[in-house]
Amino acid sequence: MKLLVPEPKSTNSSLILDIKSIEGFPVTIHHYNVKETIPEDLIDAEFLIVWTNSAANLQDAAKRMKNLKWIQSCAAGPNDVFAAGFDPSITLCTGSGLHDHTVAEHTLGMLLNSARRFYEMRDFQAQSKWPQHLGGPQPDRPKDRFTTLRDANVTIWGFGNIAKKLAPWLVSLGATVKGVARKAGIRDGFEVVGEDQIADVFKTTDALVMILPGDESTKHVLNKEKLGLLPKHAWVVNVGRGTCIDEDALYDALVSKDIGGASLDVFEKEPLPSDSKLWKVENCVISPHAAGGRPQGAEALIAENLRKFLAGQPLKNQIAIPGK
Amino acid sequence: MKLLVPEPKSTNSSLILDIKSIEGFPVTIHHYNVKETIPEDLIDAEFLIVWTNSAANLQDAAKRMKNLKWIQSCAAGPNDVFAAGFDPSITLCTGSGLHDHTVAEHTLGMLLNSARRFYEMRDFQAQSKWPQHLGGPQPDRPKDRFTTLRDANVTIWGFGNIAKKLAPWLVSLGATVKGVARKAGIRDGFEVVGEDQIADVFKTTDALVMILPGDESTKHVLNKEKLGLLPKHAWVVNVGRGTCIDEDALYDALVSKDIGGASLDVFEKEPLPSDSKLWKVENCVISPHAAGGRPQGAEALIAENLRKFLAGQPLKNQIAIPGK
Repeated sequence: MKLLVPEPKSTNSSLILDIKSIEGFPVTIHHYNVKETIPEDLIDAEFLIVWTNSAANLQDAAKRMKNLKWIQSCAAGPNDVFAAGFDPSITLCTGSGLHDHTVAEHTLGMLLNSARRFYEMRDFQAQSKWPQHLGGPQPDRPKDRFTTLRDANVTIWGFGNIAKKLAPWLVSLGATVKGVARKAGIRDGFEVVGEDQIADVFKTTDALVMILPGDESTKHVLNKEKLGLLPKHAWVVNVGRGTCIDEDALYDALVSKDIGGASLDVFEKEPLPSDSKLWKVENCVISPHAAGGRPQGAEALIAENLRKFLAGQPLKNQIAIPGK
Repeated sequence: MKLLVPEPKSTNSSLILDIKSIEGFPVTIHHYNVKETIPEDLIDAEFLIVWTNSAANLQDAAKRMKNLKWIQSCAAGPNDVFAAGFDPSITLCTGSGLHDHTVAEHTLGMLLNSARRFYEMRDFQAQSKWPQHLGGPQPDRPKDRFTTLRDANVTIWGFGNIAKKLAPWLVSLGATVKGVARKAGIRDGFEVVGEDQIADVFKTTDALVMILPGDESTKHVLNKEKLGLLPKHAWVVNVGRGTCIDEDALYDALVSKDIGGASLDVFEKEPLPSDSKLWKVENCVISPHAAGGRPQGAEALIAENLRKFLAGQPLKNQIAIPGK
């Protein structure tokens, strides 16, 4: 049996698997270029690892790989695989968990960039100007501004694995963390309230972190009405999907100072079009979908799922390919 | 006996003491304006809390406060008190410890700003440009660049209370932390090597954090020779004192790409003069001495030292006022 894994260079070196650590299975391991069609001698492979594949590569694979049994994506949300037209009988697993650390780190950086105003310092630097108002003696933890994570209320909307990685860091920096999700409960020791409690939680939120997946059910969930529930000093940080925020409503909230600011890694349309009004909003900080993009620990997930597949057991992160 | 505490407004609201929590002593508590001369009816006070006082205020106090017995500064390094000419028989205590959390948080923010390139994203945002090279698939933890704290070697030069606060956060983010100080040893579980080991430690340093005090012994300790010991991708972060770095040597190292970048909160001359060459260096990130500036927990220190003073015991953070 054959296992096809991405050729590192074809992924911009964003996935360099330690092949030794996935040896020992009754499979031969072959590299393939994720941007080109799969060569004839590999087309009979049973197992396929995908990451940053071109749409053409996946569409071609969907048509020509007749023996394909299992696809392991390294993306948290494998929309590209959904779109390619694979047979729904193929087992598909997501790369959920491979991006937790790197997305959580980027999110922490975005929160500190917002609170400690590094973006504003950079604007001053561009003019060789010392931003005196940001240095020297400063009010300590003023209630009406987001200046530090210490004693800040951080609300995380979408409380999955990334939130579970991020939340303890925020606590160690002195923040109080609450989650919002469809199902209420205690997760990893953190209080997670249902979406029906949003009005209550938003009222005391200093920073709202959005880590929601992008689908019809989350479209524009942060809209004018919800934004209106946040305090005027609250920051919005989005590392989930751009479609979760109504960008027009966000723009209005930013320019009318109804919220403190926004730090965004994802957008309704990416790359953010050069004529977007968001570019020029001083307290809107734009990051180019940079939080993830480098799967970590993929070898362990591949090995676990290969083991389980061969043993006929349910796989980790398995999801259904939508039927045609 | 009288205890004089800064009027909050006169400190830019950077010190708002919870007066109730320091009541119960055989003293009366009085607010005074730190930018003006002390009024006649308070000039006989025995105890003085100082923070962001003007030089004129301190010089006048040194001359006129004949009953003064104890000065509690809220600054980590009370150079302003030294300069004012107080009688060396007066007990002086520093505010060491009051800035640990806020300086450590700023430093963490500077490290993440450097690693995750938020400053560069902001430069692109100013031109309404999407920095594609910083988003999407990225090499994971490349050895020749500082892109994340995960698996990074962070060296902290000056391993005191701020480092002890910062280091565990860095470890929780996946970094390996080593200290450099005059005395080698294990501090709070972290290996701290002597300055004679710098060549060895710098060799594998991805980020060097400087938290040294500013005096003759630390002047230009990070010079051309020491900068040359760092890998070409290493970042220098300075939150100690600007005089510890030879800025000309740093500038040369930056423009000749001998180091990865620098993120500076302190400078040889502050505010950084508008004609400084550092402003325009792309990979030099300038923060306006903003790491501290808001003492936290001053009440507990004041109460402890007042108690000890009245009991005739040695005070916390006591240092000598240089003799005339």
